[in-house]
Amino acid sequence: MDATTGRTGASRRDRDAETLDQLGEFVAIDRVTRGLTMSSAVSVGPGDDGAVFLINGSAVVSTDLLVEGVHFKTEWSDPHSIGRKAVAVNVADLEAMGASPVSMVLALAAPGDTAAQWLREFSTGVREEADRAGICLVGGDTTRARDISICVTVVGQTEGRSPVLRSGARPGQVVAVKGRLGWAAAGLAVLARGFRAPRAAVESQRCPQVPYGAGRQAALAGATAMLDVSDGLLADLGHIADASDVVIDIDRARLDIPDPVMAVASATGKDPMVFVLTGGEDHALAACFEPGTVPDDWQVLGRVRGREADEAPRVLVDGLPWQGSQGWDHFH
Amino acid sequence: MDATTGRTGASRRDRDAETLDQLGEFVAIDRVTRGLTMSSAVSVGPGDDGAVFLINGSAVVSTDLLVEGVHFKTEWSDPHSIGRKAVAVNVADLEAMGASPVSMVLALAAPGDTAAQWLREFSTGVREEADRAGICLVGGDTTRARDISICVTVVGQTEGRSPVLRSGARPGQVVAVKGRLGWAAAGLAVLARGFRAPRAAVESQRCPQVPYGAGRQAALAGATAMLDVSDGLLADLGHIADASDVVIDIDRARLDIPDPVMAVASATGKDPMVFVLTGGEDHALAACFEPGTVPDDWQVLGRVRGREADEAPRVLVDGLPWQGSQGWDHFH
Repeated sequence: MDATTGRTGASRRDRDAETLDQLGEFVAIDRVTRGLTMSSAVSVGPGDDGAVFLINGSAVVSTDLLVEGVHFKTEWSDPHSIGRKAVAVNVADLEAMGASPVSMVLALAAPGDTAAQWLREFSTGVREEADRAGICLVGGDTTRARDISICVTVVGQTEGRSPVLRSGARPGQVVAVKGRLGWAAAGLAVLARGFRAPRAAVESQRCPQVPYGAGRQAALAGATAMLDVSDGLLADLGHIADASDVVIDIDRARLDIPDPVMAVASATGKDPMVFVLTGGEDHALAACFEPGTVPDDWQVLGRVRGREADEAPRVLVDGLPWQGSQGWDHFH
Repeated sequence: MDATTGRTGASRRDRDAETLDQLGEFVAIDRVTRGLTMSSAVSVGPGDDGAVFLINGSAVVSTDLLVEGVHFKTEWSDPHSIGRKAVAVNVADLEAMGASPVSMVLALAAPGDTAAQWLREFSTGVREEADRAGICLVGGDTTRARDISICVTVVGQTEGRSPVLRSGARPGQVVAVKGRLGWAAAGLAVLARGFRAPRAAVESQRCPQVPYGAGRQAALAGATAMLDVSDGLLADLGHIADASDVVIDIDRARLDIPDPVMAVASATGKDPMVFVLTGGEDHALAACFEPGTVPDDWQVLGRVRGREADEAPRVLVDGLPWQGSQGWDHFH
């Protein structure tokens, strides 16, 4: 592109181009950011060296990098779902702090022969999920790479509330969850066998249904510890147990087995409880509350107790250590 | 890792491990973030779902994704330089808005067989450059991938100043630069031929020398338009010309040819002015000021004038269009 007359050249190539190489970097960025509506907090949106916006209270920041072949497969996930997922998994981290979403930036690396149509559908997914989550896309970066990777960074605000950390769980509290458990893992099991049903599980694998607004709700209700379940319920509650120096005991009888998870477990001959207890990527919220303060639409799953003298912080199921894998580690 | 007893297991593996696969995700994150000192603005650092910090004025955010083979080559750049560069190119964007750096998050994707030693040197580079730039690393993400890629997102604050955009250049102003021009491109030309000298040019290619603090200085001096020179002086001033709807005329006689650039030009039979006018990756700051208000240590290079009736916004050199490439586009 001739930088001195960029806008005319850009719109011409935009119509005819079929790959990112043909579009060029500046048009690719324009494709993702063109015509975005900004909230009143945003004074400078995409197109300058940085975006500028107001923060009410303290700023809360989180970043996640999704890589093709690790976090999604282009054979399994359409670009629209990949765009949605990139937003959802990041905003879940803001929810997990009890913060309200404000703005996000997105960096995309992709091979030069990626279809322009792929970028269009990906961008639509990003925008739709951002609208759903109540967050503004304010800037980004694009570059060439062998594999597609997407790095989203989200900024939220505390609005004067204390952020809800992992370290605030206290003996005597209850543990409650809002959102799905086991659906995405069941979807993965199905996709890995070459099937596309049950559809609800497969859709959950392609993009999680994050309970937007539930983080703020929990903070207002007095939650003292919270996180989003990305690696599996037991693994993630283990982070709360560690950070709070407590023992968490999950009551299996309180765990529902959702129909799609049951269907996948039956079809694959697996214990459905394994999906629910150790399946990651659904990004439900798990939080600790004083008894009697749990919001109505959260599900109580267990309780927090102090450590015995020689006991490590840990998560138990019906009072016993869980046998088997606890969740997902990206380097193992 | 057993999530319920993670800390003990982690430190044991940490001592013996030689690759990221052996370290595991949680130890890799710990390696990057352990023992960081936080500024007083940061109330929650690494280790939770998000970091929390105060913002003075409006927040300014920018993100950049560096990919192995595109933005750096592991044969040419040591991990320490790659870590430094990932911080420097991002903070340059905050400087270009006239903002003061506050905090950054870093997402790293790398092959599982990457040496733990690589991660250690990379982290040291990140920390040293963050200290130099006056920014706190407050969180991150690590994941497996075929190629190394690094996404840094920086957050700055306006401290009550107006952000300096690209759209504020006005006829009658002068254009001035603070920082290096052409050094990194000269270094690239040398490395591409298999040489390692002149060392100053090669070092500039490995990690730019961003003029930290000069963005705030320019904003306080009344700069009305600014950016950092990442794609080449002419290409980037073209963005100011476009956004401000003006013509910028560069005076070649005002451009110094630095010794290392001259040496590379002589050795390769190239016009040194091409490096200075079109070489990217040095991340100097270029800004427009009213005459007489340019800070002492900035170098005036040209002037801003209005467009003629049928003239496009553009950048001229000694009153004439520049013949040849204007700079770098990652998809071309």
